[in-house]
Amino acid sequence: MHAAQPATARVSLPPALADALTARFGSRYSCAESICLQHGKDESSHAPEPPDGVVFAESTEEVAAVVKLCHDHRVPIIAFGTGTSLEGHLLAIHGGICIDLRGMNQVLAVRPEDLDATVQAGVTRKQLNNALHDTGFFFPIDPGADASLGGMAATRASGTNAVRYGTMRENVLGMTVVLADGRIIKTGGRARKSAAGYDLTRLFVGSEGTLGIITELTVRLYPIPEAISSAVCAFPDIAAAVSTVIEIIQLGVPIARIELLDALALKAINVYSKTSLREAPTLFFEFHGSPASVEEQARTVEDIAASQGGMDFDWATRPEDRSRLWQARHDAYYACLGLKPGARALTTDVCVPISRLADCINETIADIAESRLLAPLVGHVGDGNFHLVLLLDPDNPVEVAQARAFSNRLVERALRLEGTCTGEHGIGIGKQKYMAQEHGDAALDVMRAVKQALDPENLMNPGKVLPAR
Amino acid sequence: MHAAQPATARVSLPPALADALTARFGSRYSCAESICLQHGKDESSHAPEPPDGVVFAESTEEVAAVVKLCHDHRVPIIAFGTGTSLEGHLLAIHGGICIDLRGMNQVLAVRPEDLDATVQAGVTRKQLNNALHDTGFFFPIDPGADASLGGMAATRASGTNAVRYGTMRENVLGMTVVLADGRIIKTGGRARKSAAGYDLTRLFVGSEGTLGIITELTVRLYPIPEAISSAVCAFPDIAAAVSTVIEIIQLGVPIARIELLDALALKAINVYSKTSLREAPTLFFEFHGSPASVEEQARTVEDIAASQGGMDFDWATRPEDRSRLWQARHDAYYACLGLKPGARALTTDVCVPISRLADCINETIADIAESRLLAPLVGHVGDGNFHLVLLLDPDNPVEVAQARAFSNRLVERALRLEGTCTGEHGIGIGKQKYMAQEHGDAALDVMRAVKQALDPENLMNPGKVLPAR
Repeated sequence: MHAAQPATARVSLPPALADALTARFGSRYSCAESICLQHGKDESSHAPEPPDGVVFAESTEEVAAVVKLCHDHRVPIIAFGTGTSLEGHLLAIHGGICIDLRGMNQVLAVRPEDLDATVQAGVTRKQLNNALHDTGFFFPIDPGADASLGGMAATRASGTNAVRYGTMRENVLGMTVVLADGRIIKTGGRARKSAAGYDLTRLFVGSEGTLGIITELTVRLYPIPEAISSAVCAFPDIAAAVSTVIEIIQLGVPIARIELLDALALKAINVYSKTSLREAPTLFFEFHGSPASVEEQARTVEDIAASQGGMDFDWATRPEDRSRLWQARHDAYYACLGLKPGARALTTDVCVPISRLADCINETIADIAESRLLAPLVGHVGDGNFHLVLLLDPDNPVEVAQARAFSNRLVERALRLEGTCTGEHGIGIGKQKYMAQEHGDAALDVMRAVKQALDPENLMNPGKVLPAR
Repeated sequence: MHAAQPATARVSLPPALADALTARFGSRYSCAESICLQHGKDESSHAPEPPDGVVFAESTEEVAAVVKLCHDHRVPIIAFGTGTSLEGHLLAIHGGICIDLRGMNQVLAVRPEDLDATVQAGVTRKQLNNALHDTGFFFPIDPGADASLGGMAATRASGTNAVRYGTMRENVLGMTVVLADGRIIKTGGRARKSAAGYDLTRLFVGSEGTLGIITELTVRLYPIPEAISSAVCAFPDIAAAVSTVIEIIQLGVPIARIELLDALALKAINVYSKTSLREAPTLFFEFHGSPASVEEQARTVEDIAASQGGMDFDWATRPEDRSRLWQARHDAYYACLGLKPGARALTTDVCVPISRLADCINETIADIAESRLLAPLVGHVGDGNFHLVLLLDPDNPVEVAQARAFSNRLVERALRLEGTCTGEHGIGIGKQKYMAQEHGDAALDVMRAVKQALDPENLMNPGKVLPAR
């Protein structure tokens, strides 16, 4: 099921570079095949492409030294966080040196008084939240994987909390970035807002390592709400669930999470998590606020859901009950994989304006039925973003071709409905073919001009984000 | 009181360009001295610099045509919205053609179902909110002036609601932009989030017309809260008021507005607005939400304020009472001008992390006292952003020099406290001297590389944002 990839033009590693890396990093530089292979694959369905060597960096200065050496030798450079990208972001399709940032895992500062924290890029989201334990604050962005914050920023990641707290776009205040020639810059700052010059922070957020390597980040924190409650509610059909979502958003209910799973996903969850939830389209909710506000939000949502035929509205305020509900949601991906033992997953990621969500999902469900694909749906529907987990036998070319054709139709549909080909997974190599259609040739040319300006030798994660002309 | 400006290198307008503009635009192109002068000054203290001609454009295609003609003749191009910039953003310091966008004042689409609206760049914030009348939605960003949305995006503007709703950075979903060579691009889109490529929207937001001209924008709307209440509270000193702000923010109270005015500003307001508010440091609050949530927020804030010695806590839910309270706040700038008849104002704009706000304000107040300046303070303190309205006799060089020296010290202080030289007014020509100190030479070089990539002939609002090398 491996995707067609751009023609690779691998350059063999100059021995002088390998020598220099060994001299500088000793055993923290490796070109062992097993190490390179580990760093040449992500969680996507794209074929592995190992780098020619891996440096385990421990500081911004070390990253800068590697980049400078690679720049001098005109060798590609790829940053590696946790290897959990979903579109082939980290594949070394042109060879080169991978910089593993997992050793840069220090939480440098936690400042509850300013609601921010500064971390090295290799710190994962769970590690940060563990470090915040007992401070009363948390970091809300939660992609499925326990990804590194550097990787999450580079991918413009989000997750289930984005409807209330935004994505990495809104939650990175500033960064330290190593440029293509090894220079180190700081972007942004710690002020909550600034009108001082071009927004370099937002330029590097979502650039997938193609403009520079993020080595440190200052991110926003939020007070842990005084009260949290969760709820689930089943619906007679997807349309009723989506109508409920739209009404909640339009009413301005400050909901923290609102997740849709379809009947097939519920079936998978019941098997995997040994639950007995109704196997029907279901919304999972989470409410944050004061006790009174949370209760009021839940009542409002319950009323809206009831008016749309919602059933079995069940809400929970005790932590253990909330955990039980949300654990089922968090296990959905693995539960879905269990629907077809031995299968691999191709996960789609479109996002549309919320008024088009019902159309997009309904057309997609009809398409699934017609395609006879096994494809449970899970979605961050408060943002208009939903995923289908296409379950495939990777050795069955017919299934693979059907899934790819379906994924193409889904993206075409989302773009027709004024949406985007990727809400949170990024472009990598997998979505480049949609860039011109989504942005237009002229806007794509602007992106290319920016790339050329910041990385004229095309050494930073080459072959990603921007399609070849 | 006019600031030193970069050496101008005016190029006289090529007659062929003037002829082409006349042929295309007829009476909507003018090089009359009075018209040019009107378009060569903003609300800053910088000396006027009129353009060589003004085109009154009515569509994106017309803007593109002007830019293309100017590009062919290598003549500078400056966009004009409402002329309310505060740092000389629109001064034609290198001459050229001004494109007045006030004729592009169509609200193109209001989509309550998606909580967004698309407008031409000349639509002002009040015009948009008038167009939203009866929809149940509003657009929250409110700089002091009734600025155009294109200008607000170009300046990365904010205002009193930013603590809850963010700035233009968070509230522009997509834009139509005319590039330096006249090509038209669309950035972003209508999906609430996207991980598809470089964030061109955020690159143009805050670029002050130096990378392209924003001609249309899609902005986020918000439901008008079910309940709104306002409150004022006086404090024994600034420190107590600031401590109250910090505690409110750290508790996660979803406050919509929290504004600080000092005793001198209150004195000015009492004279100007015929109120009898206590002439002491005062916080103005606004709460948005359900009736219960709003009451709960107000009670929480009242408790916090009381613990800091807050006095005369007065809160209002009836629209007329809220208007009365906030009208006084909104009139503060003009009230301050009234403290010194005939004076002009130099308005500062630093923003610091909230933990440094008390230090920054306290040091600044001591500085004011020592400088014997007349300088009331008004601030969006929930963001760490505050302004001093330095009242000056423009013909008194000693006062002017004192004010400029004070402003320099204030920026130095804010940068030392990890803040920014401008929270919301922008760089224009007035703040360029701080760019290297705030961002560092390497980051400034990245901004220059982006500028060079998008505007290699340096025709888009030349001489702004980026200091000459």
